[in-house]
Amino acid sequence: LAGDQTEANPVIGGFGSSELPYGVFSSAGRPGPRVGVAVGDQVLDLAAIFDDPVFVQPSLNAFMAQGRAAWTSTRARVRDAVRTGYSAGRTEHLLPQADVVMHLPFEVADFVDFYSSLQHATNASRILRPGQELIRPNWRQQPVGYHGRAGTVVVSGAPVRRPHGQIVQGAGPVLAPTKKLDVEAEIGFVVGVPSRLGNQVPIGHFTDHVFGAVLLLDWSARDIQSFEAVPLGPFLGKSFATTISPWVLPLEALTTARVPAPPQDPLPLDYLRSDESWALDVRLELAVNGCVVSRPRFDSMYWTPAQQLAHLTVNGAALRTGDLFGSGTVSDETEFGSLLELSWDGEQPLRLDDGSLRGYLDDGDLVTLTATAAASGTAAGTDGDRLSFGVASAVVSGASLAH
Amino acid sequence: LAGDQTEANPVIGGFGSSELPYGVFSSAGRPGPRVGVAVGDQVLDLAAIFDDPVFVQPSLNAFMAQGRAAWTSTRARVRDAVRTGYSAGRTEHLLPQADVVMHLPFEVADFVDFYSSLQHATNASRILRPGQELIRPNWRQQPVGYHGRAGTVVVSGAPVRRPHGQIVQGAGPVLAPTKKLDVEAEIGFVVGVPSRLGNQVPIGHFTDHVFGAVLLLDWSARDIQSFEAVPLGPFLGKSFATTISPWVLPLEALTTARVPAPPQDPLPLDYLRSDESWALDVRLELAVNGCVVSRPRFDSMYWTPAQQLAHLTVNGAALRTGDLFGSGTVSDETEFGSLLELSWDGEQPLRLDDGSLRGYLDDGDLVTLTATAAASGTAAGTDGDRLSFGVASAVVSGASLAH
Repeated sequence: LAGDQTEANPVIGGFGSSELPYGVFSSAGRPGPRVGVAVGDQVLDLAAIFDDPVFVQPSLNAFMAQGRAAWTSTRARVRDAVRTGYSAGRTEHLLPQADVVMHLPFEVADFVDFYSSLQHATNASRILRPGQELIRPNWRQQPVGYHGRAGTVVVSGAPVRRPHGQIVQGAGPVLAPTKKLDVEAEIGFVVGVPSRLGNQVPIGHFTDHVFGAVLLLDWSARDIQSFEAVPLGPFLGKSFATTISPWVLPLEALTTARVPAPPQDPLPLDYLRSDESWALDVRLELAVNGCVVSRPRFDSMYWTPAQQLAHLTVNGAALRTGDLFGSGTVSDETEFGSLLELSWDGEQPLRLDDGSLRGYLDDGDLVTLTATAAASGTAAGTDGDRLSFGVASAVVSGASLAH
Repeated sequence: LAGDQTEANPVIGGFGSSELPYGVFSSAGRPGPRVGVAVGDQVLDLAAIFDDPVFVQPSLNAFMAQGRAAWTSTRARVRDAVRTGYSAGRTEHLLPQADVVMHLPFEVADFVDFYSSLQHATNASRILRPGQELIRPNWRQQPVGYHGRAGTVVVSGAPVRRPHGQIVQGAGPVLAPTKKLDVEAEIGFVVGVPSRLGNQVPIGHFTDHVFGAVLLLDWSARDIQSFEAVPLGPFLGKSFATTISPWVLPLEALTTARVPAPPQDPLPLDYLRSDESWALDVRLELAVNGCVVSRPRFDSMYWTPAQQLAHLTVNGAALRTGDLFGSGTVSDETEFGSLLELSWDGEQPLRLDDGSLRGYLDDGDLVTLTATAAASGTAAGTDGDRLSFGVASAVVSGASLAH
């Protein structure tokens, strides 16, 4: 991955001029969904400034499939266009973000959700499986994960309907709306370049395949999940919705956020080891109705994104363009990334800014996830300018039985 | 679902003239992958006989998305074309199956695998989780399932490579080829008509959404699976490959195979109940190197396909064209659909026709799954002509570490 020459990063509307994230938008007067880059509070219409059909698409998939060299050269051309456009005042292809509609940025192929925070795994064991081993032997040997539902990944802004499911009440289950609607704050990574069935993707090849990162809200109905999940894992307790941010931050933008990965004990097997093991200095902020409830640090994760991808493919499973994998809930030692942990399964409700209490989410609640990454000069933990991931948010809508 | 007027069904090359299953094929001299219908040992080129772009496609997805009315009228037109073509000797668009290459018949959206045989669930508990509750309370209340990897569903004939994974040896895991490569015999169902996110698909709407059925081989590495699967379920022990048959049997062809569903105790919740609960009289045959190892009956399954679909969507999860769901291993009281059960985890190896023993699969083994369904006049269990599902088969290839 080529180093990214980071420039001053004035934050306008969530983004500065260093992130240059990709998304898919529609705008009155411009035909069809098309690919854009966020610059400040504007969207640069790539289909208009580059004569390339890869940007006249309803998803980033075609562009993501082109691979690292194309991603690097496109980013350089975008940066030039932004500089030139600004200096010459030529802004006819810069549209206000407020005037466009953002779409799901890519067609999701397979969705895998990992479980890679030691603090989260410990908390979840304590709450959901009391009396059992807190951290099982497999957890420290491999990034444990499972496949989720790709077809219900939605873009930020889409309401999330409270799901019905089988919930145990008294002697047996009833079909009812979940009473324990939760959300997990995660970072997601999207694959651009596929791999062949039967082949492994070595840990050092991460940046050859992964295009970029998004914010990810992993909605979870804890009562549905707890009844269904043994022995085959989470199913309907998760499959009703997963929200991602509309803007995909390219990996190149995150070069400045690389920090050493935390130590691992025991040492993992060779295929999970690398000479240059890195985590990302990303700080998340989870809010309910504008009240920040947690600020977990992504660099606390036990397993790194490159380890996750190496594990995912060690059995020869093929990657496809659009494969999305989530980090798992980001919880560090003091800041937890889910209401399950924050309210300890509702036993210790949170008090929001308006004085109301939350064990789990109420109908009408607005959940907002934002994050920043270290920019040049801020990796050491200073409070300088940081890169933005934008936002992933959704309002909880009431349960209904509709056909 | 309109009743299907079944005619005499001479079996030629696996199919008669009643199944009329759909697939996607390539043939020298005809451009591109295209949609065909199997008639006896021939393929009828639909793109050639109908002037309709929906058949000039590399998958059935566009056709499957058209819905029940289009499926019914197309099947009637195909039947007419077959009759007319035969009587007039006009066979220029009937190609020998031996001369074409079959492709994956549809683009798989999400893949869900259920676990709906009571006998299999009981056997698996005894073998994999000794000492624990055989059938947990959730199992009899809902069709337990999980999401699998859509991107590694392959068509019959593609070799299946023995996967590497973390396998416990002595004190800890090593990365090694699985020593317990298994396969599960299943029936899969594919969705044609999508549903809206947030809506349920009632049990009675099954035939509005589901296009047809395939044979499904659910490959499983038992040693990888047993180390990884708590608490999030199967992951790399399954995600390396799933094989489906190239020909999709439309639901209409299976009308004659409907039989009453087995009784359920306790009675399931309302959303899983129907006035006309039906199972399918389908008999599977699983063979290794030509030696039949099991003949389980699909009508023994505890949960029906319509119950599975109603459950899958009760939380509002959307369906997409191409969604595939597997029944779970088909094991009846005397015939088991996996080597795990047949060899009791290798403790009681099977003796094949050539005298060799199998606990699990060896490199080079050919696994073959076939099935027949009751045709008109055979539903009562007579041994008359039955409809064919064709075949799903694969050879096990040796492990390798390739990038």
